[in-house]
Amino acid sequence: MSAGAVTLYDTTLRDGAQAEGISYSVSDKLRIAERLDAFGLPYIEGGWPGSNPKELEFFAKIRKRRLQQAQVVAFGSTRHPMKSVTRDANVQALLKAETAVITVFGKAWDLHVHEVLRTSLDENLRMIEETVRYLVQRGKIVIFDAEHFFDGYQANQTYALKTLDVAQAAGAETLVLCDTNGGRLTDEIHQIVGTVRQLVRTLLGIHVHNDSDLAVANSIAAVNAGCTHVQGTINGYGERCGNADFISLIPLLQLKLGKRCVPEDRLKLLTDLSRFVAEVSNMAVRTNHPFVGESAFAHKGGVHVNAMLKHPKTYEHMDPHLVGNQRRFLISELGGTTGVLLKIKELEMGFSKGSPTTRKIHKLLQQLEHRGYHFEAAEGSFELLLARHLKRLKPFFGLEGFRVIVEKRPNGRLVSEAAIKLRVQKAVEHAVAEGDGPVNALDNALRKALKDFYPTLAEMHLTDFKVRVLDEKRGTAAKVRVLIQSQDAKSSWGTIGVSENIIEASWQALMDSVEYKLLKEQRGQ
Amino acid sequence: MSAGAVTLYDTTLRDGAQAEGISYSVSDKLRIAERLDAFGLPYIEGGWPGSNPKELEFFAKIRKRRLQQAQVVAFGSTRHPMKSVTRDANVQALLKAETAVITVFGKAWDLHVHEVLRTSLDENLRMIEETVRYLVQRGKIVIFDAEHFFDGYQANQTYALKTLDVAQAAGAETLVLCDTNGGRLTDEIHQIVGTVRQLVRTLLGIHVHNDSDLAVANSIAAVNAGCTHVQGTINGYGERCGNADFISLIPLLQLKLGKRCVPEDRLKLLTDLSRFVAEVSNMAVRTNHPFVGESAFAHKGGVHVNAMLKHPKTYEHMDPHLVGNQRRFLISELGGTTGVLLKIKELEMGFSKGSPTTRKIHKLLQQLEHRGYHFEAAEGSFELLLARHLKRLKPFFGLEGFRVIVEKRPNGRLVSEAAIKLRVQKAVEHAVAEGDGPVNALDNALRKALKDFYPTLAEMHLTDFKVRVLDEKRGTAAKVRVLIQSQDAKSSWGTIGVSENIIEASWQALMDSVEYKLLKEQRGQ
Repeated sequence: MSAGAVTLYDTTLRDGAQAEGISYSVSDKLRIAERLDAFGLPYIEGGWPGSNPKELEFFAKIRKRRLQQAQVVAFGSTRHPMKSVTRDANVQALLKAETAVITVFGKAWDLHVHEVLRTSLDENLRMIEETVRYLVQRGKIVIFDAEHFFDGYQANQTYALKTLDVAQAAGAETLVLCDTNGGRLTDEIHQIVGTVRQLVRTLLGIHVHNDSDLAVANSIAAVNAGCTHVQGTINGYGERCGNADFISLIPLLQLKLGKRCVPEDRLKLLTDLSRFVAEVSNMAVRTNHPFVGESAFAHKGGVHVNAMLKHPKTYEHMDPHLVGNQRRFLISELGGTTGVLLKIKELEMGFSKGSPTTRKIHKLLQQLEHRGYHFEAAEGSFELLLARHLKRLKPFFGLEGFRVIVEKRPNGRLVSEAAIKLRVQKAVEHAVAEGDGPVNALDNALRKALKDFYPTLAEMHLTDFKVRVLDEKRGTAAKVRVLIQSQDAKSSWGTIGVSENIIEASWQALMDSVEYKLLKEQRGQ
Repeated sequence: MSAGAVTLYDTTLRDGAQAEGISYSVSDKLRIAERLDAFGLPYIEGGWPGSNPKELEFFAKIRKRRLQQAQVVAFGSTRHPMKSVTRDANVQALLKAETAVITVFGKAWDLHVHEVLRTSLDENLRMIEETVRYLVQRGKIVIFDAEHFFDGYQANQTYALKTLDVAQAAGAETLVLCDTNGGRLTDEIHQIVGTVRQLVRTLLGIHVHNDSDLAVANSIAAVNAGCTHVQGTINGYGERCGNADFISLIPLLQLKLGKRCVPEDRLKLLTDLSRFVAEVSNMAVRTNHPFVGESAFAHKGGVHVNAMLKHPKTYEHMDPHLVGNQRRFLISELGGTTGVLLKIKELEMGFSKGSPTTRKIHKLLQQLEHRGYHFEAAEGSFELLLARHLKRLKPFFGLEGFRVIVEKRPNGRLVSEAAIKLRVQKAVEHAVAEGDGPVNALDNALRKALKDFYPTLAEMHLTDFKVRVLDEKRGTAAKVRVLIQSQDAKSSWGTIGVSENIIEASWQALMDSVEYKLLKEQRGQ
């Protein structure tokens, strides 16, 4: 472990907001900023006040909140070519944000000076120099982002280094080397940062994008070569393929490289932080996200599950609790009997590994998975399967039959109707209902038939309904798998059905969903 | 660029299948294997024949397919402690797979020998030695996966190296160094591989997991240090956080490191390959997936879009077409009518960008997309939509109505029947048919009603049928999107339907599928 500290600079609210699908309101930004502060991140880049009036509103509001420790930073470009800093709206907007720290980005790649700014190389140097000096003279701490530094270094090394020189001479506190297009390889980053480290006196930072899937590795290589300031975003959100992901970088830096980043007791809030930001950003959570994903410490392979029971270090690179995550064992045909056993243990059914019952259940499970059942997301059906198989379940009702009709009338009107006949507590119930589509009609009819016998069914509702065609090549005769998620005030459970007939597959999942609710109740859960 | 070739070894079907949420049928595995072969991957690890009877079924079936170039590989462990190889069921199952190449994994970490195998260090060496030698003597090419090699090297360097020595002495062709727990840092991998490269004569391979978000970088570091065999999976699927992602590794190795991996003309199929495997695996596609994600070359920030219009190199690290992806601009004025226009141009309908027709179609499309239609995979429906809207389509038939009945009888028998009434060429056709499920019955009835009028419909068949629930939270009343893929001898086309009623959504897609076939014919296509 190499000693020392690394200063983290979060740009979720600025660069992260450039991700496709993200659009933060001012209140979203305030919520995230407060959470980042509580987590212990020292710098929070809040936005680009020159780009949008909404940005200044955020800075005005965040000033009134009492952050525990973080510095909020305003971000903007160097002045425009041939314009004075005092008349440049972008530079002036930076001052209006009233932050103690300001980040200025400038072009370090001659291609961009010629093709995008369409000015001379010398004028670009003056733009950097004057903008940094102006802000420093107004009492600001200035961080200089050398945009496209690595591409610029490759194209015109002398010029790229000159942009750093002038920013340093003008009083920038930190020079941040950017791989803006995310195209550079890890060894290139390591070598170039090492060279620059010899040439400048200021603090050095790194800002990389993930277009080559190397953003985390490249940030670590930069730290190893002398950067002490690291920029990134929560969950790696950002333009195109995103930025360096702090959710991976923080545990790597702190736990594996021994660099102090955040107070030690905060690390176990990492999983929460990742999910909170995903939620506010309205982005799907990656189940296999390193460190914090639901699958990150989930063991499925039989050999793995077996070994994990013997020694947790065998298939885990670290203790999941350190980052607020947890270990899970998955049920599957690949998991061997051990997985089944664990589940049975959880249910306190008390069988040993070698017992004939365990083997029988395991075999049954393999057959069902072969037919397309998949119990990972259907614990409800799995428990019912065990209970039925072990004859520990007295059925709550029996099906006599159902008939579902979908009719499209000549006027274009669609009608879906389901009739169902059940045996319940010695009575025969015959109910009929309409619905939005055949499955909804069947759902309504089932509840109608049962409601007088099991009034608590009114407490539960379906929260998710998924359909997957298993052998698409068979066209409309293909087998389908239906997964239903249900919940009541106490818990949530998944159930499954598989059939060539989507109505039948849905029926199986529906029936299990209701029966599991009744089973839970019987057990007083 | 460093010259030379790298041999890719794909383990999507074995290690990838360990990912939470993935459960491949034999037919899924065959489809993926054929696609990997066509893409040019030289090794396809097909499964672990000793773990599950389903695995041997795959090997039996893939032998009968004519792969273009790939070697299918069987995977399994060394023999059990204190058992002879000839009596070890796992080793014998490896032979039953009848592959020319076999991968054997053995323990390289003393902790695993003590805690998991619960045998002596010497016996573990004999297990490796005897298993490899036995298979080599039976004419197999043997690849030895040194499981947990890097953790083992750190814990007991001498022993970890000994496991390689015995495998080499027994005739293994390639020694694969595994970071099974995914906990190692890039510089550690680079240094250790470099040391091992000096010590062994055989080919060296690398197999790493992504628990530290470094799998891609670590694989590249290993190649730089002397590995010429690289293991990974499509989309990085695998246990916990997954394996090294070939979708990122392949373009990095081939385009940035100059290593030959796949035939040059295949690289542009990379995006297709990634999406195909995601689809068959029923895994969500990552929009910000490096190289192949929809957002990977999507420009959102105003500065970026503006610069990109001036020079494409400014914010792209490479040309997206090289990997079969494309550039997108996320500002609606740019993305909107331009896209529609491109499509209209393709169909040679001859409208200009500003024309009222183009605007009207654009608006209609926006409304439909808002309702859940999604024409990217449904060109058939898109063309019919345009043709209907522009009144360039004389309908081939008109629907009077249909009725679909699914009945579950008291004896458990399921019957699906569809009756359909159509107007065709001034006649009224009324047909009824049964099927495997309601949609298949409707499909059969539709064909029965049309067959005398349009005999060429017998030439077409459905090749794919997909169902997506759009607003899962509404449970059984949720809206569903049905996508159907059809083909005849000349081409393949996709059609779509959206409704709360799955029968209605399927009907829309079915009807479009048939109508598009008839439209093609009318045009002489």
